[in-house]
Amino acid sequence: MDMIRVDGRQLDQLRPLKMTDNYLMHPAGSVLIETGHTKVICTACVEEKTAPHLKGTGKGWVTAEYAMLPGSTADRKKRDGVKKDGRSTEIQRLIGRSLRSVVDLDKLGERSIYIDCDVIQADGGTRTASITGAFVAMVQAMKKLKEQGLIEEVPITGFLSAVSVGKVADQLMLDLCYEEDSRAQVDMNVIMTDDGRFVELQGTGEEAPFTAEEMAGLVALAKKGCEELCRAQKEIIGEL
Amino acid sequence: MDMIRVDGRQLDQLRPLKMTDNYLMHPAGSVLIETGHTKVICTACVEEKTAPHLKGTGKGWVTAEYAMLPGSTADRKKRDGVKKDGRSTEIQRLIGRSLRSVVDLDKLGERSIYIDCDVIQADGGTRTASITGAFVAMVQAMKKLKEQGLIEEVPITGFLSAVSVGKVADQLMLDLCYEEDSRAQVDMNVIMTDDGRFVELQGTGEEAPFTAEEMAGLVALAKKGCEELCRAQKEIIGEL
Amino acid sequence: MDMIRVDGRQLDQLRPLKMTDNYLMHPAGSVLIETGHTKVICTACVEEKTAPHLKGTGKGWVTAEYAMLPGSTADRKKRDGVKKDGRSTEIQRLIGRSLRSVVDLDKLGERSIYIDCDVIQADGGTRTASITGAFVAMVQAMKKLKEQGLIEEVPITGFLSAVSVGKVADQLMLDLCYEEDSRAQVDMNVIMTDDGRFVELQGTGEEAPFTAEEMAGLVALAKKGCEELCRAQKEIIGEL
Amino acid sequence: MDMIRVDGRQLDQLRPLKMTDNYLMHPAGSVLIETGHTKVICTACVEEKTAPHLKGTGKGWVTAEYAMLPGSTADRKKRDGVKKDGRSTEIQRLIGRSLRSVVDLDKLGERSIYIDCDVIQADGGTRTASITGAFVAMVQAMKKLKEQGLIEEVPITGFLSAVSVGKVADQLMLDLCYEEDSRAQVDMNVIMTDDGRFVELQGTGEEAPFTAEEMAGLVALAKKGCEELCRAQKEIIGEL
Amino acid sequence: MDMIRVDGRQLDQLRPLKMTDNYLMHPAGSVLIETGHTKVICTACVEEKTAPHLKGTGKGWVTAEYAMLPGSTADRKKRDGVKKDGRSTEIQRLIGRSLRSVVDLDKLGERSIYIDCDVIQADGGTRTASITGAFVAMVQAMKKLKEQGLIEEVPITGFLSAVSVGKVADQLMLDLCYEEDSRAQVDMNVIMTDDGRFVELQGTGEEAPFTAEEMAGLVALAKKGCEELCRAQKEIIGEL
Amino acid sequence: MDMIRVDGRQLDQLRPLKMTDNYLMHPAGSVLIETGHTKVICTACVEEKTAPHLKGTGKGWVTAEYAMLPGSTADRKKRDGVKKDGRSTEIQRLIGRSLRSVVDLDKLGERSIYIDCDVIQADGGTRTASITGAFVAMVQAMKKLKEQGLIEEVPITGFLSAVSVGKVADQLMLDLCYEEDSRAQVDMNVIMTDDGRFVELQGTGEEAPFTAEEMAGLVALAKKGCEELCRAQKEIIGEL
Repeated sequence: MDMIRVDGRQLDQLRPLKMTDNYLMHPAGSVLIETGHTKVICTACVEEKTAPHLKGTGKGWVTAEYAMLPGSTADRKKRDGVKKDGRSTEIQRLIGRSLRSVVDLDKLGERSIYIDCDVIQADGGTRTASITGAFVAMVQAMKKLKEQGLIEEVPITGFLSAVSVGKVADQLMLDLCYEEDSRAQVDMNVIMTDDGRFVELQGTGEEAPFTAEEMAGLVALAKKGCEELCRAQKEIIGEL
Repeated sequence: MDMIRVDGRQLDQLRPLKMTDNYLMHPAGSVLIETGHTKVICTACVEEKTAPHLKGTGKGWVTAEYAMLPGSTADRKKRDGVKKDGRSTEIQRLIGRSLRSVVDLDKLGERSIYIDCDVIQADGGTRTASITGAFVAMVQAMKKLKEQGLIEEVPITGFLSAVSVGKVADQLMLDLCYEEDSRAQVDMNVIMTDDGRFVELQGTGEEAPFTAEEMAGLVALAKKGCEELCRAQKEIIGEL
Repeated sequence: MDMIRVDGRQLDQLRPLKMTDNYLMHPAGSVLIETGHTKVICTACVEEKTAPHLKGTGKGWVTAEYAMLPGSTADRKKRDGVKKDGRSTEIQRLIGRSLRSVVDLDKLGERSIYIDCDVIQADGGTRTASITGAFVAMVQAMKKLKEQGLIEEVPITGFLSAVSVGKVADQLMLDLCYEEDSRAQVDMNVIMTDDGRFVELQGTGEEAPFTAEEMAGLVALAKKGCEELCRAQKEIIGEL
Repeated sequence: MDMIRVDGRQLDQLRPLKMTDNYLMHPAGSVLIETGHTKVICTACVEEKTAPHLKGTGKGWVTAEYAMLPGSTADRKKRDGVKKDGRSTEIQRLIGRSLRSVVDLDKLGERSIYIDCDVIQADGGTRTASITGAFVAMVQAMKKLKEQGLIEEVPITGFLSAVSVGKVADQLMLDLCYEEDSRAQVDMNVIMTDDGRFVELQGTGEEAPFTAEEMAGLVALAKKGCEELCRAQKEIIGEL
Repeated sequence: MDMIRVDGRQLDQLRPLKMTDNYLMHPAGSVLIETGHTKVICTACVEEKTAPHLKGTGKGWVTAEYAMLPGSTADRKKRDGVKKDGRSTEIQRLIGRSLRSVVDLDKLGERSIYIDCDVIQADGGTRTASITGAFVAMVQAMKKLKEQGLIEEVPITGFLSAVSVGKVADQLMLDLCYEEDSRAQVDMNVIMTDDGRFVELQGTGEEAPFTAEEMAGLVALAKKGCEELCRAQKEIIGEL
Repeated sequence: MDMIRVDGRQLDQLRPLKMTDNYLMHPAGSVLIETGHTKVICTACVEEKTAPHLKGTGKGWVTAEYAMLPGSTADRKKRDGVKKDGRSTEIQRLIGRSLRSVVDLDKLGERSIYIDCDVIQADGGTRTASITGAFVAMVQAMKKLKEQGLIEEVPITGFLSAVSVGKVADQLMLDLCYEEDSRAQVDMNVIMTDDGRFVELQGTGEEAPFTAEEMAGLVALAKKGCEELCRAQKEIIGEL
């Protein structure tokens, strides 16, 4: 791996990661996650009411919203109005779905956790940073519920982190920044648990289709990245 | 493979496939695709104007919309209104993106092809059936452009089809019908070219995360399915 | 009547009519109605809840929605979004109102029948074809309710069909196709019961006002058309 | 005709009519029309730009909007917001269409007349009062265009008025007030020119279908009413 | 004060004021207020249900909506649709807030008063005329509630009126008409009670900031104007 | 002044103020302003196109948007969707209007500055903090335009800051935090220039009207606060 990347990283190297927890005073959980220049505020708010379709089942719900501040991108991004941005809709569905896959909704009880991921600065990988940060905010909120005696244990079945991988200039690489992402031939987002299983895997041949071998290489890189991210999450979350 | 599926199929068997081309009189291309009980009307309309962001570049565009008729599902599905359904938005973005990956937009010239996929009966796999059918409608529209002398050749770089695979009751299987899909532990949609490369791959551990081995098994099934679908497409499309 | 129409029909002749019942597997009633090139999928779904304003009165409700698929017209028709198309709104109000005029809402009981008319191919007369087809789908749904023992009899007070008539090139004619409709000097839609009474009558002098004599002539043509349509409905519906 | 109506009128008698012209200072034409308790402000504003689809044809356009003030009805009527009220949409399409039928759009030239009908007090017959008043406001605006030398003559082909008729308690009657309208078995709106031809005719059997004889009776009443209304319009408009 | 204003008024002189009460037959209270050429219909409708956030508290609510008819301005004003006009939103919040400040919501009981202010002709000062007129309509509605025995007394703590003041061509003046308002260097709206206290005060340096001395002069003018307006209100309202 | 406030401040004391400039990498100007617990990200983005109504006049435009992140408040705040929050609309109009009052739009030239104020943590005074921070972000963006040679000087006519004052428990005080604001009897927002003139002044008697004397006391407090804020702005902005 002798190629030097835009920012001097190795092909299999994550960007510098920083997570500031208890970032805001109002939400039950809140994290400012920074991966390179990408910065996302992730919050988790609890409401003592489950989703309408689960009323009476004893089960809880986790849902997510994702948005970008107008000043987060190189050209000012218009706010979503009547016509919700298709990309944002897709990302927030992904965040909610993947978080729920590691939550024991029965043990959460009939309450909802609202996750909000607001990108304040975008430099690639905002959806994966959102998931990695949102997981931490969600667990913090769950720890508060446990402290308050509302649940007996933090109802998760594993840790969850996400990272992007891609093929850029014919090289496979980990954790693409915006400049790499915009030139990527293949782009893949991988969401994994801390025991190395896949929760979601979305690969797209932006320019041209990709082969089975390329897919294997990308998945291996993603696995390495997610393992490092989960270690960082465990450090900041501490004992459950 | 001794398990018998809901509808008596083998684990690696597609549902009966039927494509009726030139289904409607107005659009340049139109196909009624039926895979088992799932029925989708796919149309391709040409407009002699490219997307705004490509104006003056000589490039064309392909975009897609996806919707379900209210009577297509077991419970009447409300029509999209102000608040566009998140799932539909996501699917139509997927359809457009994957079709564009096999189109030479330069050779298409400054015009747009609007793909519409309207599900009239849903029994699982509506998004993959939409892609498989939409590809045929799109190529029909391109053939008409060629007949009219507006383009010199049908500007595609390969054939494109899509299929779902999944893990149901701990068994990996091809082309899930609704009953299987609703009980799936893992659900994966694969979009491939006729030379066996991936255009898009989206796998979700609905209930629980999935392992690398399971992924490999699912991908193999999908490859088999897409090969069969591409053969059917070639038969109906004929000479380019 | 020596004038030859666009499609060779007599002035007082309906277009070829075909109704395919039980067209879809999910709705309680469903019909594909084809009158000439005009094709509409009509479905009837039952919900065991009446309209809000009738709650507690013992009365049921029938309501309708009407839409055109994007590929149904010569130029691709944009889907309705935020700003509901005025013409569609008007037509679906007409469909619901006229169906209700032949239903005994007391005998239907506190449930709703949702009618959906989705035009898949338009060649004039889509609103009248929708009404004729929707009536059949509605009665099929009612027959199912009767089979399930939820109602004692099919709660209709008569059969209902609709047809367009008009003055084209100074000739009065029955059942206008699109080409005739677009050149019509007078355009009238008539909705009648099988005993020859009017449920709704809407006449418009598109280009110029019309006289009382012309009105009488148009009404006579419409009566002839509706009688034929009701006969076809009775054949397909069978015993109530 | 010995039956006494709610307000003591004869069956074939219009309600007291009052039209105040030049009611507002800004619009080119404006009328406050009062028919009984029904009061509608009708305005006509001119814009020196035709409708988009007529650009370059030399033709003008007339379009209308209709709304009810919240305090115009017995129960406060919610303002139209995102979801445009179906009834209002239908009425404003009717107003625009019928006005255009008596306008020579070629002679109007490439400009638009915007008609606004705002009901400030509703007691039945708001759509027909709107048409009768809007015609006057429109002609006033045209007279101003003529005074300014922008057109050579007032480009109308006839006078236009509208009235409702109906069958109430088995009696046919002219110009229904709200109390009569709400109990009507048959309800018909008729829009006529001053030479007795029909521009639009919409009859609905609210409760039960109606016969051909009843239709003839209603049309005769409407004709009488429209003749009186046109006389009043001519008086207020004066010389063209 | 020797400057002559556009319409010949003194600098500290209100425009001619006319209030027609019981202007409409349906609402509990209704006033047509005319100040110079500005004309606003103010209505007050009562609903026997308080605002959702006050349910069970015994308190009532007063809320307001404000709109301008399309024909009320020199250029036709588009109706509010999906995207509610920012200015209208701001004004209706102001009207509701200031009316509530003089209402004893406990004594009103769990009911709502809906105020609607519809500007039919605009010549400056529409928001202040709306408040002055709306107060009268609201009190009329309250008097009706008292007559019906639903409340024991008219639950207001004072009279409320509003007026604009401004600096135009370096002169401070009372009650700006549109021509003055459009050239104003400073624009201030003042809402006062009949005992000379401020309920709301909004001053804006349109062109340039204003000094403390200017503010004092404007406030004195406003006080004079509001005193006159309250006297007129008392006359029309009579005994409470 | 012997009363001790919620947070131990004197009655005429501002909360601790911190402004972090160049907070984000993409916008031309960006500031994170913190006043006590209230935190707002203010950004200024430049577009080389003026507002539509100023095209061809040589003048530029400044416009603002204001929003609160869902996690910024004690109860999760729903995002604005179709129905734009009235309060946010009002605030963003205020921010834009007051910034424009100190900008020489002619010298700005035909370009627009988009101000975005996104509240990430709310504890009272978010609109005034937004204005104070937005002014700094706007000037930073202007300095960049000057460095790029696009304008000759920073086109402002003065410095601009804003602060809230109020009457709480019968005491007049400066810079209300949320707890004070929610109990305020009078609430006033004052926007001033650095030479002590008013740009905007909005006072509301929340509970009860206020006297002229109280207004004078509040204005004096606001003046003191704004002077301190302008000093801080000058420090962070440096030479123009």
